[in-house]
Amino acid sequence: MLSELYQKLEQRWGEMVEIRRHLHKHPELSFQEKNTAKYIAEYYRDIGIDVRENVGGNGLVATIKGRLPGKTVGLRADFDALPIQDEKDVEYKSTVPGVMHACGHDGHTATLLVLGKTLNEYRNQLQGTIKLIHQHAEEYAPGGAKPMIEDGCLEGIDVIFGTHLWATEKLGKILFRTGPIMAAADRFEVVIKGSGGHGAQPHKTKDAIVAGAQLITDLQQIVSRRVNPIDPAVVTVGSFVADNAFNVIADSAKLIGTVRTFNPEVRDFIETEIEQIIKGVALSFGCEYEYRFERGYPAVVNHSEETQLLIESAAEIDEVHSVEEIELQMGGEDFAYYLERVKGTFFFTGAAPENADTLYPHHHPRFDINEKALLIAAKTLASATLHYQKKHAEPGITARR
Amino acid sequence: MLSELYQKLEQRWGEMVEIRRHLHKHPELSFQEKNTAKYIAEYYRDIGIDVRENVGGNGLVATIKGRLPGKTVGLRADFDALPIQDEKDVEYKSTVPGVMHACGHDGHTATLLVLGKTLNEYRNQLQGTIKLIHQHAEEYAPGGAKPMIEDGCLEGIDVIFGTHLWATEKLGKILFRTGPIMAAADRFEVVIKGSGGHGAQPHKTKDAIVAGAQLITDLQQIVSRRVNPIDPAVVTVGSFVADNAFNVIADSAKLIGTVRTFNPEVRDFIETEIEQIIKGVALSFGCEYEYRFERGYPAVVNHSEETQLLIESAAEIDEVHSVEEIELQMGGEDFAYYLERVKGTFFFTGAAPENADTLYPHHHPRFDINEKALLIAAKTLASATLHYQKKHAEPGITARR
Amino acid sequence: MLSELYQKLEQRWGEMVEIRRHLHKHPELSFQEKNTAKYIAEYYRDIGIDVRENVGGNGLVATIKGRLPGKTVGLRADFDALPIQDEKDVEYKSTVPGVMHACGHDGHTATLLVLGKTLNEYRNQLQGTIKLIHQHAEEYAPGGAKPMIEDGCLEGIDVIFGTHLWATEKLGKILFRTGPIMAAADRFEVVIKGSGGHGAQPHKTKDAIVAGAQLITDLQQIVSRRVNPIDPAVVTVGSFVADNAFNVIADSAKLIGTVRTFNPEVRDFIETEIEQIIKGVALSFGCEYEYRFERGYPAVVNHSEETQLLIESAAEIDEVHSVEEIELQMGGEDFAYYLERVKGTFFFTGAAPENADTLYPHHHPRFDINEKALLIAAKTLASATLHYQKKHAEPGITARR
Amino acid sequence: MLSELYQKLEQRWGEMVEIRRHLHKHPELSFQEKNTAKYIAEYYRDIGIDVRENVGGNGLVATIKGRLPGKTVGLRADFDALPIQDEKDVEYKSTVPGVMHACGHDGHTATLLVLGKTLNEYRNQLQGTIKLIHQHAEEYAPGGAKPMIEDGCLEGIDVIFGTHLWATEKLGKILFRTGPIMAAADRFEVVIKGSGGHGAQPHKTKDAIVAGAQLITDLQQIVSRRVNPIDPAVVTVGSFVADNAFNVIADSAKLIGTVRTFNPEVRDFIETEIEQIIKGVALSFGCEYEYRFERGYPAVVNHSEETQLLIESAAEIDEVHSVEEIELQMGGEDFAYYLERVKGTFFFTGAAPENADTLYPHHHPRFDINEKALLIAAKTLASATLHYQKKHAEPGITARR
Repeated sequence: MLSELYQKLEQRWGEMVEIRRHLHKHPELSFQEKNTAKYIAEYYRDIGIDVRENVGGNGLVATIKGRLPGKTVGLRADFDALPIQDEKDVEYKSTVPGVMHACGHDGHTATLLVLGKTLNEYRNQLQGTIKLIHQHAEEYAPGGAKPMIEDGCLEGIDVIFGTHLWATEKLGKILFRTGPIMAAADRFEVVIKGSGGHGAQPHKTKDAIVAGAQLITDLQQIVSRRVNPIDPAVVTVGSFVADNAFNVIADSAKLIGTVRTFNPEVRDFIETEIEQIIKGVALSFGCEYEYRFERGYPAVVNHSEETQLLIESAAEIDEVHSVEEIELQMGGEDFAYYLERVKGTFFFTGAAPENADTLYPHHHPRFDINEKALLIAAKTLASATLHYQKKHAEPGITARR
Repeated sequence: MLSELYQKLEQRWGEMVEIRRHLHKHPELSFQEKNTAKYIAEYYRDIGIDVRENVGGNGLVATIKGRLPGKTVGLRADFDALPIQDEKDVEYKSTVPGVMHACGHDGHTATLLVLGKTLNEYRNQLQGTIKLIHQHAEEYAPGGAKPMIEDGCLEGIDVIFGTHLWATEKLGKILFRTGPIMAAADRFEVVIKGSGGHGAQPHKTKDAIVAGAQLITDLQQIVSRRVNPIDPAVVTVGSFVADNAFNVIADSAKLIGTVRTFNPEVRDFIETEIEQIIKGVALSFGCEYEYRFERGYPAVVNHSEETQLLIESAAEIDEVHSVEEIELQMGGEDFAYYLERVKGTFFFTGAAPENADTLYPHHHPRFDINEKALLIAAKTLASATLHYQKKHAEPGITARR
Repeated sequence: MLSELYQKLEQRWGEMVEIRRHLHKHPELSFQEKNTAKYIAEYYRDIGIDVRENVGGNGLVATIKGRLPGKTVGLRADFDALPIQDEKDVEYKSTVPGVMHACGHDGHTATLLVLGKTLNEYRNQLQGTIKLIHQHAEEYAPGGAKPMIEDGCLEGIDVIFGTHLWATEKLGKILFRTGPIMAAADRFEVVIKGSGGHGAQPHKTKDAIVAGAQLITDLQQIVSRRVNPIDPAVVTVGSFVADNAFNVIADSAKLIGTVRTFNPEVRDFIETEIEQIIKGVALSFGCEYEYRFERGYPAVVNHSEETQLLIESAAEIDEVHSVEEIELQMGGEDFAYYLERVKGTFFFTGAAPENADTLYPHHHPRFDINEKALLIAAKTLASATLHYQKKHAEPGITARR
Repeated sequence: MLSELYQKLEQRWGEMVEIRRHLHKHPELSFQEKNTAKYIAEYYRDIGIDVRENVGGNGLVATIKGRLPGKTVGLRADFDALPIQDEKDVEYKSTVPGVMHACGHDGHTATLLVLGKTLNEYRNQLQGTIKLIHQHAEEYAPGGAKPMIEDGCLEGIDVIFGTHLWATEKLGKILFRTGPIMAAADRFEVVIKGSGGHGAQPHKTKDAIVAGAQLITDLQQIVSRRVNPIDPAVVTVGSFVADNAFNVIADSAKLIGTVRTFNPEVRDFIETEIEQIIKGVALSFGCEYEYRFERGYPAVVNHSEETQLLIESAAEIDEVHSVEEIELQMGGEDFAYYLERVKGTFFFTGAAPENADTLYPHHHPRFDINEKALLIAAKTLASATLHYQKKHAEPGITARR
C-alpha cells in the first residue's frame, strides 16, 4: 500500500503547491483565521471527509475511519500567519498588508490536506483511524492547541505526529530528537519601585535604575551558578525602561524578559529563583517590587519509541537523504501540549530553498520554503502513520500490501 | 545714608510686593521673557534710569552713576520662570497655563527694581557706580549669564552680589558660604551598541542591557573609590532605556545622567573616568559605544573677602536675625560665570512662608515665598553695596553720612 | 567460550576481592606507585603473561596474544590513590596515613588482573590480541595516560574499553553514553594588580579587591550569555585571596578557578572570553593583570559504534539488571587521551554498597565500593572484548564456541 | 611673661632635641611603654613637678599649679611607637628591632616635658593650673585616651590643646580647622557562609565567592548613592579571603574593612546600611552571614572659640610663618575623646625636614621630622595656654607681665 500511496502523493505534489500558494497569498493572524478554517473545511467536505469545525476556536478535526480495526493516529498541522510584511518578489506573495506566512504553516496545511485526501482513498486497507488536526494560533500564546485539546481533539487518539518545515535545513533531511526537543518559553515582568528625586540628591532617594542594574547582573547567576550545567536554560531581560530626564533619579524601572528551559523542574526553579534574587535586591535597596511570571508553552518532549518509529519510517523514503538528530531548539511550540497527553513525536523536515544565496530564517520578511519539502513531509507522515498502525495491529488482522 | 535708605525701602515694600505679584501672574519661560524684559526697561525708563536692553538676549543692564568717584558694584536678579503648572490658591496665581514662577525669580526682580529706584535717589552721595543686571534664562542651560557677559554686562564692574530667596529657610536668615557654594551641573549620554537577537539565543548576540547594567554598577566606583572623599561629587544615571519585546535581546541601550561637582579638577576627572569605565565595559562585552559629556554651569565659587563683607553688611540689618554658613548645595546656578570673572558673592535670603504647614521646595507646583524676604534681600544688597564702596573709596573722598 | 569464561570469573571473584583489599591497604599517591606497579608486574610474570614495565612512568602493559588472527583490544585500569585519610572501620582499611584508595582504582586493578589471567587461559581460542593497560596517575594532571601513549601503549590497538566503578549507582547497572561523557577540566589563574594604599584614601589607589569582585561578577556572563545554552559549561572561581589589614586598600588579588566543557570549541572560546573580560575590567580600573589558563584533561568522548557494542555486550550478562544512559559528568578523566587516538568507550559500573545508610561519594574519607561490582566489571569487559573480536574476525576464521 | 618664656624655650631647644633623640632610640609599642613612662615620671620628679603615674594604664598627668586663681588648661602629648623597622641612617636611629617612633610621638613628648619644666618656673605668675597629660597608646585602638579619662585625667580641666608634628607640611606652618578635623575610623568584618562543593557542580552549592563579590560591588552604593554627597565617607574592604583549591566552590568568604566618617549620624547610618546590603545579598543567595562593626576612635571635632584662640595665639609667634586651614583628614586620633568632654582644639605643626629630596609620610620606615618644629610646637602651646588663662582670668586679678 505505501509505495502506491507514495506515488499518488508524488502525482499530487502540484496540488499541494497550489494550495500552499493560495494560503500564502491569504494569510490570517493567530485567532483570526476564519477564512483559512473555512477553506480547510470545504476542502474535506468536497471530498466527503468528515470534518468537525470550531474545535477550541478556529481549529478543525477531520477523521478518516479505516475499514480494519486498529489504532488512531493524529496528524497535526497549524495554519496561522504572522504580523510581518511580506518582502519577497514572487507571484504568490501575501496580499494582506503586514501579514505573512513567514513560518511555513501554509505548507503544513497544504501537506496535511492532500495527505488526508490520499489516505482517505485507502481507507479500506487502513488498520485504524486517522485524525487530521488542523490547529489555529500556534504563533501566539496561549495558543490553539490547549483549547482544541480541551474541546476533545485528542479523544481516542493513540499517537500523534507533527512536523515543521525548516527553511534553514537542507531538502532531504529529516531531523528528529528523543526527549526534549523544543524549549518551554515563559515571560516575566519585574517592576522595581524605588523612590525618585533630584539627580543631585541620591541620599534622599532609592535609585531604581541602580537597583535594576544590580538585578540584571544578579540574574546572570541563575544560569551560571544555580541551574545544573547539563540542563540548558536561558534567562533574558529583553527590555529595561526607566525613561526620565537626565537630572532626576528614577522612581521605578520596568524589566521584561523570557525564560527558556527543557526540564520542568528547572522551569519551576527559575521562576522561584528570579523572585528570590529580586527579593534580595529589594531588601538591600529598600525598594518594593512587582513580579509576574507568565507561563508560555511547555517544552516539547518527544516519546522515545515513537521517535524510533519515525526514524525508521523516514529512512525508507527515497527523497529522504539523511535522518539526523537535531540539537535542542530554544524556541517554543504548543505541540508540547499534545505530547503531554498522548505518545508521539515532533520532527523537522528540511526545506531550504535551492540555489538561494541567503537562507532567510523563520519570521524574516523574505522567508520562503522549498516546496519540494511538502512532498517529503507528506510521505514521512504517511510512512509513520501506516507503520505505526501496522506495528500495533491486532494479531491475525493484516492489511493486504 | 544707609539708615535713611533702609527706611525708604521699608516704605516701598508694598511696591515690591505689587511688582512681584504682577510678574507672578505673567511668568515667561527661559529665553522667551520678552514682556518681562519690556516691563523692566519701562520701569527704569519711567524713573529716568539709564537702561540697556537686549544684552546677550533678553537681558538688561541699568546703570546708576554716583556723583563721587569709586568702585562699580554689580547687583544681579534673574527673571525667567519654569514649565510648571501653578497649583496655588492665591489671587496672584499664574495666568499662563503650564508656566510658573516656581523659583522666586519674580521676587528677585521686584527687589532689584525697587532697590535700583531707591539707590538712584541717593546718587549724589554714591561713591561709585551701581549696575543693575537683570538676567534672563537662568533655569535652562546654557543660560543667560554667559551671553550677557559676552555682551559686556560685566564691563567696568569691580564686584558683584546676588541673592536667591530660599523658601525652605526661615525668614530673617542670611546664608553665606566662602569658596564653592553651588555645584557644577553637567549632563552625559551613553549609547551602548551591542548586537541584538532572539531572546533564546544569547550566544549569538552582545546583550546591550547586560552591558548597560554592568556599566551602571561600575559607575558607582567613581564616587566611592576614585574621587577624594572630601570632594563632594555625584554621578547619577537618571534614564536607562532599552525598550523591546520580552523575547528579544537588546541591540542597544541609552543612558542619560548628570554629574555634580565643586572642584574643577574633579569635574574633568569624572568626565574622563566615565569614559574609561565605558571603554572597559565595551571591551569586555565586545560592544561599541557613544559618549557625550555636555558641560552645564560651573560651580558657584564665592570670594572670601567679599563674602566676609557680606556677612558684616547683613549682620547690621534689624530684620536679619541670623547670618549662617550654608552647606554646599548640589544644585547649579549660572551666577558661577560672573564669579569666574569678577569678585563677589552669592548668598541665600531666608523666605519661608509664615505659619505654613508644609514648606514646598523650589520647583514645586505649590511653591511660594514669604514676601517679607524681599525687603530683607533689598536691604542686604544695599548694605553690601554701600559698605563695599565706602571701604574702597579713595582716601580723602568720603560721602556724608 | 564466553559462558565458560564467565563461570571461571565467578569462581575467581574471591581472588579479585583479595587483591583489591591488598591494594586498598597499601595505597600509593599518583606518580609514586612503585610498589603497586611491582605487584602488578609480578602477578603477570608469575602466570607467564608478558608484561612491559615503566611504560611512560610507572605504567605497565601486559599482552595476551590469541592463537587466531584478529583485532587488538586494549583494556585499561588505573591504580593510583588519593591524599585522603581513610576513616572507614574495616579490616582492609588503608595502612598508609593520609593516603587512600578513595576512588576505586584498587578495584579496577584487581578486576583487570584476574580478567587477564582468565583470558590468558583461553588464548588458543582468542581471535586477536588483548593488551592490559595498567595506568598510573589518573588523579593528578597531567596524568599517566599521556606519557603512556607517548611511550607506545596504544601501538597496534584497534579499540579500547575502560570502566569506572561508581559507588553512587546501584549494583547491577552499567551506565553508558555516546559522544561526550566526561568534561574537559581546566584550571585558570588571574592576578589583578592594582595599586594599594591607605584604606581611607581610595582615590590614591586602584582597589584590587573591587576590581576582582567586578571580574567575578562579569565572569558569570560567559555561561549565562556567551556560550550556547545547549553546551554545558562551568566557570568557577574557587579561590579569591587578597589578605590584608582592615585599613589598607588591596594592592593585588589572586583568583584561581576551573572551567568545565564538553565541546572543544567552547573550551577554546571560554579561555579567550575570560581574558577578554579581564582586559575590560583592567582597562576600566587602570589595573594590570596576569592570566594563565592551564589545560587539564580534555573531554572523554565515546565512539558511537563501540558504545553500541558495549551496550549489547553488557545486556547479556546475568548480573547486569539495567543498561542505562548516564547524564553528562562534569568531572574529568584522562581516558580522554586514549579515545582521541583509538576507537572505544568508557562506561560506569554500578558499585553502591548494599544496605548502606549513606552513599559516600568518591573522594570521601568513608568512601567504599561494593566488591560484587568487580565481577560485573570483569564480565562486561570480557563480553565487549570477545564480541568485538568476533565481530571483526576475518571471514572464514571462527573460534570454536 | 610670654616673650621671656619664648626665649627660655629657645635656649632649651637643645634639651628638647636630646630628649627626643633618646626616646627615638628607645621606642616602645602601644600599651607596653613602661620605660618611657618611667622616663617621663623621673623627669618631672627631678624638677619637683607633681606627677601621677599609671593613669588609665601607662599614662601620666603632671600638674603645675599657678599662684593665681584661674582656669585649668590641659596639654596632651602621646608617647607610643609603631611596629615598624627603622630604616633611617642617623645616629639616633631606633635601637629596638622592628619598633620605631615613625609618627613623631617622641617629639610630642620632648616638647611637652621641656615646656612643662619651663612653665613651672613661671608658676608664681600663672593665673590657673596646667595639666600635662602624657598619653600612652594612641596608635592602637581602643587607645590610651579613653582609660586615662576614665581614670580622671580630665578632672578640673577647662580646656585642652594638643598638636601633631606633621612631617609633610613645611616648617613654620600651624594648621588648624574648626569642627571636624580627623575622621572616625571604624572596622568591620563580614563572613559570608555559603555552602561549598565541587567546582564542577555549582548548582549543588551556594558560592560564597560570587556572593562576596556581589557584596563588595553593592557596598560601593553606600558612598555613591546613600550618603549625602557633602558628607565625606569611605567604605573600604581591605581584605577578602576565600582560600581554596582551584576545583572547589568556596564554602565561606571573609571580608574585613574600614569605615571613615566625620558626621556621627553618617557613621551610624553606614553601620546599618552595610548590614542591610549584606542581608539583601544573603537573601538573594540563600547564604548566612556574620557581621561585626567595631567602633574605633570617633571624629576629632575642634571647638570653634578655642580654635580661634589658637589661631591668634599662633599668629604672634615669630617662627610661625603661616596659620592655615587644613583639609579634612581621613585618619583617626583618640584626641577625639578629650574633645567630646571638654573644649579645646587639636592642630598640626609643620615639621617637614629641610632640604629633603623625599618627604616620607608618617608610618614610613624612613620617616623623620624637622626637630626645629619642637620649639614651634612648644611656643604655640605656651601661647595658647597663657592667652586662654588671661582671657578667662577673674576680673581684678591680673598677672604682672
